[in-house]
Amino acid sequence: MSLHGQSLIAGRRSAGGQPVFQAVSPLDSTTLEGNFATATEAEVNEALEAAKAAFPAFRDADGETRALFLEAIADGIMELGTTLIDRARLESGLPVPRLEGERGRTVNQLRMFAKIARENSWYDARIETAQPDRQPIPKPDLRRAMQPIGPVVVFGASNFPLAFSVAGGDTASALVTGNPVVVKAHEAHPGTSELVGEVIAAAAAKTGLPAGVFSMVQGNGRTVGPWLAKHPATRAIGFTGSLAAGRALFDAAASRPDPIPVFAEMGSLNPIVLLPGTLKSRPAETAALLATSATAGAGQFCTKPGIIIATEGEGLDAFRTALSSAFAAVPPTTMLHAGIAATYCKSSRKLAEHAALTIVGRSSAEADTTATQGSALMVETTAEKFLAHPELAHEVFGPFSTLVVAKSADEVTDVLSTLGGQLTASIFGNDADLASSAPLVSQLSEIAGRVIINGVPTGVEVNTSMQHGGPWPASSDARFTSVGTAALERFVRPVSYQGAPQTLLPPALRDCNPLQIDRLVNGVHTRESIQ
Amino acid sequence: MSLHGQSLIAGRRSAGGQPVFQAVSPLDSTTLEGNFATATEAEVNEALEAAKAAFPAFRDADGETRALFLEAIADGIMELGTTLIDRARLESGLPVPRLEGERGRTVNQLRMFAKIARENSWYDARIETAQPDRQPIPKPDLRRAMQPIGPVVVFGASNFPLAFSVAGGDTASALVTGNPVVVKAHEAHPGTSELVGEVIAAAAAKTGLPAGVFSMVQGNGRTVGPWLAKHPATRAIGFTGSLAAGRALFDAAASRPDPIPVFAEMGSLNPIVLLPGTLKSRPAETAALLATSATAGAGQFCTKPGIIIATEGEGLDAFRTALSSAFAAVPPTTMLHAGIAATYCKSSRKLAEHAALTIVGRSSAEADTTATQGSALMVETTAEKFLAHPELAHEVFGPFSTLVVAKSADEVTDVLSTLGGQLTASIFGNDADLASSAPLVSQLSEIAGRVIINGVPTGVEVNTSMQHGGPWPASSDARFTSVGTAALERFVRPVSYQGAPQTLLPPALRDCNPLQIDRLVNGVHTRESIQ
Repeated sequence: MSLHGQSLIAGRRSAGGQPVFQAVSPLDSTTLEGNFATATEAEVNEALEAAKAAFPAFRDADGETRALFLEAIADGIMELGTTLIDRARLESGLPVPRLEGERGRTVNQLRMFAKIARENSWYDARIETAQPDRQPIPKPDLRRAMQPIGPVVVFGASNFPLAFSVAGGDTASALVTGNPVVVKAHEAHPGTSELVGEVIAAAAAKTGLPAGVFSMVQGNGRTVGPWLAKHPATRAIGFTGSLAAGRALFDAAASRPDPIPVFAEMGSLNPIVLLPGTLKSRPAETAALLATSATAGAGQFCTKPGIIIATEGEGLDAFRTALSSAFAAVPPTTMLHAGIAATYCKSSRKLAEHAALTIVGRSSAEADTTATQGSALMVETTAEKFLAHPELAHEVFGPFSTLVVAKSADEVTDVLSTLGGQLTASIFGNDADLASSAPLVSQLSEIAGRVIINGVPTGVEVNTSMQHGGPWPASSDARFTSVGTAALERFVRPVSYQGAPQTLLPPALRDCNPLQIDRLVNGVHTRESIQ
Repeated sequence: MSLHGQSLIAGRRSAGGQPVFQAVSPLDSTTLEGNFATATEAEVNEALEAAKAAFPAFRDADGETRALFLEAIADGIMELGTTLIDRARLESGLPVPRLEGERGRTVNQLRMFAKIARENSWYDARIETAQPDRQPIPKPDLRRAMQPIGPVVVFGASNFPLAFSVAGGDTASALVTGNPVVVKAHEAHPGTSELVGEVIAAAAAKTGLPAGVFSMVQGNGRTVGPWLAKHPATRAIGFTGSLAAGRALFDAAASRPDPIPVFAEMGSLNPIVLLPGTLKSRPAETAALLATSATAGAGQFCTKPGIIIATEGEGLDAFRTALSSAFAAVPPTTMLHAGIAATYCKSSRKLAEHAALTIVGRSSAEADTTATQGSALMVETTAEKFLAHPELAHEVFGPFSTLVVAKSADEVTDVLSTLGGQLTASIFGNDADLASSAPLVSQLSEIAGRVIINGVPTGVEVNTSMQHGGPWPASSDARFTSVGTAALERFVRPVSYQGAPQTLLPPALRDCNPLQIDRLVNGVHTRESIQ
């Protein structure tokens, strides 16, 4: 493997500017091969102008072509084989099985969207036929279908170097309907990004699409981000990362002369509510399950359970004891990069000494700082203290969680009502608990995008029914998801055609239904042609 | 009729604060009956707290109850009879037939949404059933459906005192799924607003819904607007009006600690492109049609054609001559209120003297300023001059339009590319023109929400296929419409339920499909129960 370190602008390598940076492996703090040049403003502009120029052809390409493009990306990623997995491991510190699993998810997402492109099942086509004799005025022929919005900027996430990065869910869900994509590679895994970026560029060429449908720029988000967000051709932004960075992008997009939508997934506390029956009958098993969910992958999932709310009562001591043992047994784990580890280390040290918190359990082994390790930490407080200290409700990205002990169900409600928007919210209970939990589920559905019963929030299914996104600050727009088939709805808009002859209608709206899709015709769902 | 002049806070009249204002009739500049008290910040807070408190019950009410509520509003509006029409005429200056038509549209919209509430056809329910044996990990049961978002603030528009005001499209499309609404009554028609507001409050009481599902505050938008936009309970804003006011609301909402969506419909130039065949064969008929569309209702429609683009050639002189006559014959017409008339008068006078413009035609009769009249004005320029003077591309709200004469089809394209987002864009052409118009239609679909062939943009159908909303600045979010059934999509968000027992699922997602709705079950559309 040899890495060129350049940005990819519409299929062409571009030399870039300053600073030139290297990836550092969190596994041993060594500098990795490859000198990566930060993209210049001229390169960012070039990428977006090329995206804009490529848009009409990409928009008008048929579903089969877009499907083949997505499948060629999937094939190309698999063909990289161990080259990709090895580089991703060095850059992210994530273990090989996890990366192989993440690659599988990435490729499956691309193939899932390829299927949608091939089926043309995303148009939401609606047709109202004319009634020239209607009184008091004739009814016009009116037809409405979705179409892509134009160039989408995607910011790669550090914690999923494959599934939420260059060819991840944001990119796939933008490409599927014909939106060109410009990716800002995450600076923690520029080599992984380059490998995947080259695959996408090659797939575009192979599929006969204009090179401008994909570009990837290298560099720091604070430098390159504003150029991407402010460019007139940018029509939307997909982002996964911190609240601070997501807010900055949101504000930049909202302050444009023509504001554009930002789909920022900014993390979450993912509260878990333990009901009395579970605490009483399954304290140890539940503790083990939650400890694993909170510390797997060094707790670097946006769905990590960051707060566990239990009510005083039978089983709580056993639960706490089991949690303590489970956390003690978690080995310190390499985190994604030195910056994340330093922030985690500082936050967890501060919290370990917080007057309102006691320590339930922590990794018994010593962390190796050369291996960028973070130690697991579980702390405890009361609902009363939690409510008195708003700083305890901030997400800590890493293998950390807080047990909040309430005196009553009302206190549980009070704690939940202070949390703000969440990606997920979970309940553990036995049948008797759940029989009386409708009000609790109702409250959780107001604050979260996904409500889970007797399950952990980590592990996000990718299918038609997933909602990954919740009220602010979990994400910037709770009406959309960044995971699953519905993710494509972020990057389309409806257009109505009134009185148009057949030849001027998009295929989805023509009488003969050439795409053979389900349509709403005069209020009735049908795949029939219009006579 | 006697008007109390108070705000309606959760079913209760509330005395309000300063300033107290009166409506002035644009018909004769007289002050109308009724002293209206500007709502206080405490009243605004009370309205939103009541909305928040009423939300769970309204959300959980069944579709039949919401349908009855909407139908009771429609019935109540009709029962007001001439009392409502007379007051609306005095406050808006709009003629009785127009107001009766608008009342019909308002009532039809309410009944259309009542039908949707009764059918429960808005949930977009998706179900993925569990596969406990799936490798490498079990597939969980995951179910996703829409739910209402919570309190919605609606700003009444001046130009549709019924259809886009207190019980207009924004209100109906928020109420249909269970979102409480707080309306800011437009200060130009406070009496009309009070009459309709009382109807809604009575309908809520009659239907057994909590009073907090509806409140209406009186007052000036600059005073009351920020309180409404910034309140923590407000979940979304619907607005129709000027770009300046829409932008102010958008900025206020975007700068909240938790930004909320604003659906602002901010007007449009609604370009018309005349192709050579039409110009040659039907110059006079087309001129008459466009002159009517541009001047009907004193040009106070957001879909008024504000720019007509023609290419030099046969028929242009005849078209211009016919336009000139048609505009001369348009009588000066009472505008909605003195502020709109003054702004129009100033703008049109300035444009009539603009060096880059010549006058094609204007109302031959003299305007009566006591009757708040505006004179129709049609001006002309070349594409070259239009491109050199960006100020000519600003919307003028009133009976005004600009003919832009291009030298070539390329110049037409250049003019269109400078216009920004539009609600509508229209083409007039004969069969030969249209046969080669695919690129033009493609360009128009990028800038507009609705593309019209051989028809005028005024007259907005209310059905499944309408898109009323386009790229900025036509509206603040081109992915949504403010007219038609899809308007309700602005005020819902998806929530997924994972592993939930039947009793904790919303009815839309239960196995037995109690609502008998179409659902996507494991990727297939069906109304069947799940076994």
